[in-house]
Amino acid sequence: LEQKKRGLEDRNALRNGARGFAQQVLAGAPKLYSKHTSQTARFEATRPIYRNAVEGGLIKGQIPTELGGTSNNLIDAAIVIEEFFAVEPSAALTILGTGLGLTPLILAGSAVQHDTFLKPFLSGDGEPLAAFVHSEPGGTANWLEKGAPGLQTTAWKDGNEWVVNGEKLWTTNSGGWGQRGADLQCVVCRQSPPNIPQDPNSDPVSNILILIVTGEEIANNEPSAYTVVSDPELVGYISTNGPHSRFTNFRVPSANLLCPPGRGAQTVEQTFGCSAALVGAMSVGIMRAAFEAALKFCKADARGGTVPIIKKQSVADKLIDIKMRVEAARALTWKALSTLENGPCGWENKLEIALEAKIWCSDQAPKAVVDAMSIVGMKSYDKDLPFSRLLEDAVCLPLFDGGNIGVRRRQLERIFQKEDYEPWAATYT
Amino acid sequence: LEQKKRGLEDRNALRNGARGFAQQVLAGAPKLYSKHTSQTARFEATRPIYRNAVEGGLIKGQIPTELGGTSNNLIDAAIVIEEFFAVEPSAALTILGTGLGLTPLILAGSAVQHDTFLKPFLSGDGEPLAAFVHSEPGGTANWLEKGAPGLQTTAWKDGNEWVVNGEKLWTTNSGGWGQRGADLQCVVCRQSPPNIPQDPNSDPVSNILILIVTGEEIANNEPSAYTVVSDPELVGYISTNGPHSRFTNFRVPSANLLCPPGRGAQTVEQTFGCSAALVGAMSVGIMRAAFEAALKFCKADARGGTVPIIKKQSVADKLIDIKMRVEAARALTWKALSTLENGPCGWENKLEIALEAKIWCSDQAPKAVVDAMSIVGMKSYDKDLPFSRLLEDAVCLPLFDGGNIGVRRRQLERIFQKEDYEPWAATYT
Amino acid sequence: LEQKKRGLEDRNALRNGARGFAQQVLAGAPKLYSKHTSQTARFEATRPIYRNAVEGGLIKGQIPTELGGTSNNLIDAAIVIEEFFAVEPSAALTILGTGLGLTPLILAGSAVQHDTFLKPFLSGDGEPLAAFVHSEPGGTANWLEKGAPGLQTTAWKDGNEWVVNGEKLWTTNSGGWGQRGADLQCVVCRQSPPNIPQDPNSDPVSNILILIVTGEEIANNEPSAYTVVSDPELVGYISTNGPHSRFTNFRVPSANLLCPPGRGAQTVEQTFGCSAALVGAMSVGIMRAAFEAALKFCKADARGGTVPIIKKQSVADKLIDIKMRVEAARALTWKALSTLENGPCGWENKLEIALEAKIWCSDQAPKAVVDAMSIVGMKSYDKDLPFSRLLEDAVCLPLFDGGNIGVRRRQLERIFQKEDYEPWAATYT
Amino acid sequence: LEQKKRGLEDRNALRNGARGFAQQVLAGAPKLYSKHTSQTARFEATRPIYRNAVEGGLIKGQIPTELGGTSNNLIDAAIVIEEFFAVEPSAALTILGTGLGLTPLILAGSAVQHDTFLKPFLSGDGEPLAAFVHSEPGGTANWLEKGAPGLQTTAWKDGNEWVVNGEKLWTTNSGGWGQRGADLQCVVCRQSPPNIPQDPNSDPVSNILILIVTGEEIANNEPSAYTVVSDPELVGYISTNGPHSRFTNFRVPSANLLCPPGRGAQTVEQTFGCSAALVGAMSVGIMRAAFEAALKFCKADARGGTVPIIKKQSVADKLIDIKMRVEAARALTWKALSTLENGPCGWENKLEIALEAKIWCSDQAPKAVVDAMSIVGMKSYDKDLPFSRLLEDAVCLPLFDGGNIGVRRRQLERIFQKEDYEPWAATYT
Ligand SMILES: Cc1cc2nc3c(=O)[nH]c(=O)nc-3n(C[C@H](O)[C@H](O)[C@H](O)COP(=O)(O)OP(=O)(O)OC[C@H]3O[C@@H](n4cnc5c(N)ncnc54)[C@H](O)[C@@H]3O)c2cc1C
Ligand SMILES: Cc1cc2nc3c(=O)[nH]c(=O)nc-3n(C[C@H](O)[C@H](O)[C@H](O)COP(=O)(O)OP(=O)(O)OC[C@H]3O[C@@H](n4cnc5c(N)ncnc54)[C@H](O)[C@@H]3O)c2cc1C
Ligand SMILES: Cc1cc2nc3c(=O)[nH]c(=O)nc-3n(C[C@H](O)[C@H](O)[C@H](O)COP(=O)(O)OP(=O)(O)OC[C@H]3O[C@@H](n4cnc5c(N)ncnc54)[C@H](O)[C@@H]3O)c2cc1C
Ligand SMILES: Cc1cc2nc3c(=O)[nH]c(=O)nc-3n(C[C@H](O)[C@H](O)[C@H](O)COP(=O)(O)OP(=O)(O)OC[C@H]3O[C@@H](n4cnc5c(N)ncnc54)[C@H](O)[C@@H]3O)c2cc1C
Ligand SMILES: [Mg+2]
Ligand SMILES: [Mg+2]
Repeated sequence: LEQKKRGLEDRNALRNGARGFAQQVLAGAPKLYSKHTSQTARFEATRPIYRNAVEGGLIKGQIPTELGGTSNNLIDAAIVIEEFFAVEPSAALTILGTGLGLTPLILAGSAVQHDTFLKPFLSGDGEPLAAFVHSEPGGTANWLEKGAPGLQTTAWKDGNEWVVNGEKLWTTNSGGWGQRGADLQCVVCRQSPPNIPQDPNSDPVSNILILIVTGEEIANNEPSAYTVVSDPELVGYISTNGPHSRFTNFRVPSANLLCPPGRGAQTVEQTFGCSAALVGAMSVGIMRAAFEAALKFCKADARGGTVPIIKKQSVADKLIDIKMRVEAARALTWKALSTLENGPCGWENKLEIALEAKIWCSDQAPKAVVDAMSIVGMKSYDKDLPFSRLLEDAVCLPLFDGGNIGVRRRQLERIFQKEDYEPWAATYT
Repeated sequence: LEQKKRGLEDRNALRNGARGFAQQVLAGAPKLYSKHTSQTARFEATRPIYRNAVEGGLIKGQIPTELGGTSNNLIDAAIVIEEFFAVEPSAALTILGTGLGLTPLILAGSAVQHDTFLKPFLSGDGEPLAAFVHSEPGGTANWLEKGAPGLQTTAWKDGNEWVVNGEKLWTTNSGGWGQRGADLQCVVCRQSPPNIPQDPNSDPVSNILILIVTGEEIANNEPSAYTVVSDPELVGYISTNGPHSRFTNFRVPSANLLCPPGRGAQTVEQTFGCSAALVGAMSVGIMRAAFEAALKFCKADARGGTVPIIKKQSVADKLIDIKMRVEAARALTWKALSTLENGPCGWENKLEIALEAKIWCSDQAPKAVVDAMSIVGMKSYDKDLPFSRLLEDAVCLPLFDGGNIGVRRRQLERIFQKEDYEPWAATYT
Repeated sequence: LEQKKRGLEDRNALRNGARGFAQQVLAGAPKLYSKHTSQTARFEATRPIYRNAVEGGLIKGQIPTELGGTSNNLIDAAIVIEEFFAVEPSAALTILGTGLGLTPLILAGSAVQHDTFLKPFLSGDGEPLAAFVHSEPGGTANWLEKGAPGLQTTAWKDGNEWVVNGEKLWTTNSGGWGQRGADLQCVVCRQSPPNIPQDPNSDPVSNILILIVTGEEIANNEPSAYTVVSDPELVGYISTNGPHSRFTNFRVPSANLLCPPGRGAQTVEQTFGCSAALVGAMSVGIMRAAFEAALKFCKADARGGTVPIIKKQSVADKLIDIKMRVEAARALTWKALSTLENGPCGWENKLEIALEAKIWCSDQAPKAVVDAMSIVGMKSYDKDLPFSRLLEDAVCLPLFDGGNIGVRRRQLERIFQKEDYEPWAATYT
Repeated sequence: LEQKKRGLEDRNALRNGARGFAQQVLAGAPKLYSKHTSQTARFEATRPIYRNAVEGGLIKGQIPTELGGTSNNLIDAAIVIEEFFAVEPSAALTILGTGLGLTPLILAGSAVQHDTFLKPFLSGDGEPLAAFVHSEPGGTANWLEKGAPGLQTTAWKDGNEWVVNGEKLWTTNSGGWGQRGADLQCVVCRQSPPNIPQDPNSDPVSNILILIVTGEEIANNEPSAYTVVSDPELVGYISTNGPHSRFTNFRVPSANLLCPPGRGAQTVEQTFGCSAALVGAMSVGIMRAAFEAALKFCKADARGGTVPIIKKQSVADKLIDIKMRVEAARALTWKALSTLENGPCGWENKLEIALEAKIWCSDQAPKAVVDAMSIVGMKSYDKDLPFSRLLEDAVCLPLFDGGNIGVRRRQLERIFQKEDYEPWAATYT
C-alpha cells in the first residue's frame, strides 16, 4: 500500500513536470513558428524549443535506464505524451519523433551500436534529432505483400558498404536541422540492387534490412547522395519535419547495419507496436483538450439564455459522450502499455492490444473534437479558439503511424486469423 | 513482482472457478426454465441452480471478508460476472440480485443489523434471496425532483413501527420463492403518511428512508399486507423475478430501520454507484460471447466461397470493431472498479467514473451483438444460435440499474456542473 | 397541377386502404399464431389472413396491369409495405413473399408461361403461394465466385425433363400450406449432374438456370422427390414459412424452364434489385412504428417528474434522431423506386441506388428501435409494449434479401469498380 | 411523360450551367484570395468573382419570377448550390448570402418595398450585396426565451425614424465591400430603448421587428453610427464577410420598416426555414466532392500493392458508407424543398422536414470527409489534396444557419411537443 501510494506520488510528480514543460515551453512554440508560411521554416523555428527539451531531459527520458537513459516504463511515457498533446502536439511530435527514431536501435542494436549511436542522445546537449525512416511516397501499407513491387528504397552490399537508393516521405525529423539529415536515421530498406523488380516468388520479409545513417555518413557521401526534395505542407503538425528525401548511391559502412536482411521487418513491427499504443495517449491528449475547452465554455456562457448552457441536457449529453471516450481511451491505452511491458502473454497478444488502442483511440479523436464544436456552437469556428487546430491535429491520428485501414486493421486481422489465436490472452494470461 | 505473479495466479484461479460454474451449472438453467411459459414459473425452475450457487459460495462471495463473507475486491467480482454473463445472464442475475439486495445493508447497517440480517446469507445453506427494492411502476428517474410527486411508496412511524404503503416494480428477487417475498428486502420509502402529496417546498432527499423487510415481517403481517400483483414478462432475463408488488399498511419494527429519513438517498446512490460499474462487467460478458460466437463461425465457414469468411476484410473489420469495444469496455470497467475501491479521490469522482463505465459499456452491448449478427449473416437469425438471446439480454443493460438517459446521464451532468468539478481526478489524484 | 392533386388523392386512398387492411386484418394475426410453439404451426395459423389478402386483391396487386394484375408502380408498393410493416411484418411477409416469388416469372416468363402460371394468382381465389427459391444452407453470398463450389442445387437435362437435386433454406413460402410445396416455386439451379464439383475454370454465371415448380410437378413426382426437412425457428417473422427443403431427382418438364443456363443469374439480380429497394420500405415501416410508440409514451408519461418526458432535451434529441432517419430512409427508398421504374439511366445505376436504399435503410432499423427503447426506458422492456417485437423483426432486415455485408455491399463495390461508373447517374441522367 | 422529359432536360441544362460557372469562375477564387492573410483582404479579393456572378444572372436567379427575378423553384436552387459547394464553397457563400439577405424582403416586403429595394439586385449590374443580419456576439439560440436578456440589438421609434443600437456578428456580407456596409441589410431588432433590460414578463416575440438598412441610410448617418469592429478569422469560408459590426444611434426612416414589432420573428423563422433545407444541398455538395476525390484516388492508386485499393473490401465499404449518405442526404433535401414549396401540408410540417434536412445532412458532412480521408490514407493529409479544405468547410454546416443543437433541434422539439403534431404530414397530406 505504502508502495502504491509512492507510485502515485511519483506519477503525479512526473505529470506535474510534464504539464509544466508543456505550459511553459511547448505552449510558446506557435508564437515562434506560426508566422512562417512554409513547413520548413516553421520546423526550424522550433529549434529553441527542442534544445530546451534536450536540456530538460526529455530525449534521455525516452531511452531506457538500462541503456543510460531515464525511461522507466511506458505508462510514464503515456502520461508525458498526454500532457504535451493537450497543449501543443506539433512541437511535441518533434521531440517524440526522436524517441521513435531511436526505438529500432534500442530494440535491435548490439552493445557496440548502443554505445556508439545513443551517446549524443544521452548527453543532454545540443539538438540531436533521430528519425525512423520507413514510409515512402508510393505507400507502405503493402510493403510485405508477396508479388507486389515491395519497398522502393533498396540497399545492396558492395564490399564493406551498403549502397542505398530510393525515396522516403513523411519520416519525422529525418531532414534534420538545415535539411542536411537527422543526426540518426534508421532507414528501412529492401535488399536489392536498384531498379530490379522484386522477385514475385520471394518472401518480402526475407529481404528487409535496417541501416543506421548518421550525420557522419551524410558528410562522408557526396552532397547529392542524400537530398531533401521537399517538405510537404501538412494540415496539422505544421512545425514538424517529414520531408520527401532521396538517397542516391548513398554508402553506409557495414558496422551501421542494425538488422540484417530477414530481421528488419520484425524490428519495424516491434517499433510500430510500441508507437501504436502511444498514439492512444496522443489521442487522449487531444480529446482531453477539446473536452476541457468545451466544458469551460459551457459552464461560463449562457448564449443569451437564463442559465449557462451546461444546464441544458443536449449540451451535457455531448460533454458526457466526449468524456466517456476520453476515459475509455485512456484506460485502453494504459492497459495496452502495461501489457506490452509486463504482460505474461506472447508478443502477438501484446501487439493485438496495442493495435486496438491505436485504432480505437485515434478514431475517436476527430469525432470528439467535432462533438465539442457542436456544443460550443458558432464560436468554436473562430480561429481564436483551439478547436480547429485540435481538429487538424486529430485527423492525423488515424492516418499516421500506420493508417488504421491500410496497416493497423490488416495487422490485427492476421492475428485474428491465426489458428491458435486466444482473444483474451492480453488480459487473462 | 513475485506478488504480482501471485495476484495473476489467484485471478486465473478465480476466473477458472467462475468459468467452471458457468459452464457446468448456469449453462444448464435454460433447460430447466425455457419450457415454462410464464416469468414466475421460469424463475421457480431455477431454484436448484440457486441452491447450487449458495453451496458454491457465490452468495457469501458477495459479502466482504470483514463481515464474514469472502469478497475481496470489486475486480474479482467483475471477473466472475463477466464469466457468468458470457454464458447465462438470466440465472446469473438472480444470484447477483442478492448481492445487490445486501449492498445497502452492508453499506449502512449497524453492527447489530449486520449480525442479524447477514446470517442466512453467510450460512451457505438454503436458497436465501435478497432484494434491493427501489423502482416503482410510475418511474423513478425523477424521484428526487423538488416539486414532483416523489416516491410513491411511503412509510410512516407509528409507535415502535413503520407502516409502509405503495407499489414496487422490477425489483430483482423481491417476490421470493413462492411469491411470498424475498428473505430480505431493502425497501426504499418516502417518509409520509399514505395519500398525502409531497410538499413541493421540501427537499425530497430529507424524507428518504430505507427499511429492512424479512420473511419474518411478512409472516407477522396480514397476508394482504404484502402481495405480489404480477410478474411482468420480460424480453430477456426471462428466469428472473422482478414482480409488481404491493405493501398495504405493512408494519416493520423500528429495529429494521436501515437508514433514517434524510440518509436513505445517499445509500441508494452508493448502492447504485457500485452496481453501475458492475453493469460494465455484464456488458463485457455479453459482448465477449457475441464476439466469440462470431469469430468461431467466421473461421469455420466459407459460405460457399473459397476461403473462410474471416479472410474477407469486411468481416475482419467488424470483428475488430467488436473486439476493440470489448477491450475498451473491460479496461474502463476495471479502472472504475479499482478507483471506486482504492482511488484516493473523493466520492463524486469515484461515482463519475462508475457512471461512465455503466453508460458507455452498456450502450456498446446491443451494437456489438447487432454487428456480430451482420457478419455471421442469415444464420445468426436462427434461434439455435446464441445471437438473439444475447441481443435480448443486451438491450436491457442501458435500461436497468438506472436508465442511461433518465438516471445515469443526469447523475453525471450534476457532477459536471459542480463548480469544483475536476475531470481527471479519478485518474490523477 | 390538377393531375398532381389527383395523384396525391389516389395515393392517400391507397394508403388508407392499406392501413385499413393492416389494422383490421393483419393486426389480428398474432392472436391466431402466437399461441403456437413451432414455426410450422404458426405459419399454418395465418392461412385465414392470407385468404383475406387474396380476396382483398393484395396478390393481384403485386402483378403488373399489363399481365392482368393491378400493380401500377413501385412507390405504391412501398406505401402498402410501409403500412403493413408498421403493424404486423410477419403476416405481411407471407403476402409479399408471393410477390417476390412471382417476380422472376413476371420478368423473364414467355407469354405462354405468363398465361399458364400467373392464372391462379390473378383469380382472387384460394390461398395460392409463390416462392423465390434461391438460398441454400451453406450460404449464397459467393454463389457466382469463380473457383468456388457454386450453387449446390443442380439441374440436369434428361430428355424432355430437368432433374433437380439439392437443398434450399429460408425461401419464403416455398414449403406451402401443409408442407407440400408452394403453388409456384422459381427454383434457381446450377446446370450440372448431381455430385459433380463445379469446374473451377468455368464462369458460374453460364450455368445458372431457373425452373418453375408448381403443385402439379410435385404431385407428378414421387413424394420423396420433394420434402420439407424442417422449418427453422426464426427470431422474428415467426409466422412465415422458409423451410429447409430437399429435391431428390425431382423431375420438371422442359416447358417449365423459365431461364435457360446463362440467363438465370441476371433474372436473380433483377428480382433482388427490385426487392432491395422494397426492403427500404419495410425498414421505414418498422422505424416508423418505433417512433410512433416512443412519441406517444414520451408525450403521455412524466415518469414521476413534473412534465412529460418529451419536454426533456435528451428525450427530444433521440426522437429527432429517429425521425430524421425515418424521413431520410423514406426519401431514399422512394427515390430508388422511382429511378428503378422511370430513371433514364442504365440498369447498373438503377441497381446502385436500389442497393444503397437496401443497405442504408435496413442498417438504420435496429438502431432506431434501440434508440426508441432508450428513451421509453425500462417500460420498453416489458413484453406488452411493441419494442422487442419490432427489434426482432428489424434485425432481420440487414440480413435477409441478400445480407448487407456478404451480398449487397459486394454488388455495390463491383459497380464502383467499373471504369465507366458514373456516381450521380441515378439522379442526373 | 413528354413534360417529364423536358423537365429533366431543363434540369440538366441548369446543372451544366452551374457546373460551368463553378469550374470556370468559382474555381479561380482561391488563387485570388488565398495569398491574403486576413479575412477582410480575402473577401475583397473575390469582388471580380462576385461581379461575374451578377453578370451571369446568379443574383437575379435568387429572386422569384413574380418579383422580376428568374428563380423558378427551390430544387433548382439546390442543384446550383450543390454544384457550387462541390467546387468552392467560400466564394459561393458570398453569392448565396445575398439571396439569404433578400429573403426577408421577398417574404415580408410590401409592393413598394419590393420595387424600391430589389431594383439593384435585379439590374444585373455592379456587385450589390445583401445581408440577413440576425446573429449577435453573445449568441442567438435563446433570443426568444421568456425571462432571458433577449436580442441585444434594439430599435426605438423616434418620430418618423427608428433608432438602432447594438452589435451583430457573423452576418454574411453585412460589412459590404470596403467595410461600409452591404447594399441592403435586413436587421433584426428588439423594440426597446437601448440599455433597458427586457421585461421578464413580456413575450419576446411581441417586440421583434426588422428594419431595412441600405447604403443610403449608412451615408445619411454619422460615420460612427455604423462601424465594422472587426472581421473574425474563420476556420473555413475564409473569403466570406461576416463582421462584428456595431450600430450606435443609427437612424432608419420608418418606410424601411419591413416587419413591425410582433411580426419579425415569424419572418426570421421563415427565412431560416428555407435556408435550412438549402444547407442540405451545401452538405451534399461537400460530401460529393469528398466522395469523388476519394473514389478517384482509390481507383488509380495501389499504394505499393498489386491492385488499386478500391479492390479492397475495407476501402469499398467506406466509399459505400459515404455514397449512401450523399444519396440519402440529397433525397431528403429535395423532399424537404419540394414539400416547402408545394406541400399541401401546413407550415409547421414544412418547417419540420426542412429542419430535419438541415440537421441530418449537415451532421453527415464532417463524418463523410473524415471517412474519405481514412481510405485515401496519409496522402489525404497533404495540403495539396482537397480534403482538409473540405473538412474546414464541412464542420461549419452543423454550426451556422442556426446551430443544430442550440437552435435547430430546439425548433424541432417544439413541433414534436405540439398536441396536434402529425409526424407524417410532410409526406402524406
Ligand atoms: C506527422 C506525420 C509523422 C510521420 N512520421 C513518420 C515517421 O516517423 N516514420 C515513418 O516511417 N513514417 C512516418 N509518417 C508516415 C506515416 O506513418 C505513413 O505514411 C502511414 O502510416 C502510412 O499508412 P497508410 O495507411 O496511409 O498507407 P498507404 O500505403 O499510403 O495506404 C493508403 C490507403 O490505402 C488503403 N490501403 C492500402 N493498402 C490496403 C490494403 N491492403 N487493404 C486495405 N486498404 C489498403 C488504405 O485505405 C490506406 O489508408 C508520418 C506521417 C505524418 C503525417
Ligand atoms: C432485469 C431487471 C432487474 C432490475 N432490478 C432492479 C432491482 O433489483 N431493484 C430496483 O429497484 N430496480 C430494479 N430494476 C428496475 C430498473 O432498475 C429501473 O426501472 C430503471 O433503472 C429505471 O430507469 P429509467 O431510466 O427507465 O426510469 P424511468 O423513471 O422509468 O424513466 C423512463 C425514461 O424516461 C426518460 N426520463 C425520465 N426522467 C427524465 C429526465 N429527468 N430527463 C431526461 N429523461 C428522463 C428517460 O428516457 C428514461 O429512460 C430492474 C429492472 C430489470 C428489467
Ligand atoms: C424471413 C426470411 C425470408 C427469406 N426469404 C427468402 C426468399 O424468399 N428466397 C430466398 O432465396 N431466400 C430467402 N431468405 C434467405 C436470405 O435472403 C439469404 O439467406 C440471405 O440473403 C443470404 O445472405 P448472407 O449475406 O447471409 O449470405 P451467406 O452466404 O449466408 O453469408 C453469411 C455471411 O458471410 C459473410 N460473407 C460471405 N461471403 C462474403 C464475401 N464474399 N465477402 C464478405 N463477406 C462475406 C457475410 O458477413 C455474410 O453476411 C429469407 C431469409 C429470411 C430470414
Ligand atoms: C460562415 C457563416 C455565415 C453566417 N451567416 C449568417 C448570416 O448571414 N446571418 C446571420 O444572422 N448569422 C449568420 N451566421 C451566424 C450563425 O448563423 C449563428 O451564429 C449560429 O447559427 C448560431 O447558432 P448557435 O447554435 O451557435 O447559437 P449560440 O447562441 O451561439 O449557441 C451556442 C451553443 O450553445 C448551446 N445552446 C445554446 N442555447 C441552448 C439551448 N437552449 N439548449 C441547448 N443548447 C443550447 C448549443 O450547443 C449551441 O450550439 C453565420 C455564421 C458563419 C460562420
Ligand atoms: Mg424473443
Ligand atoms: Mg487550416
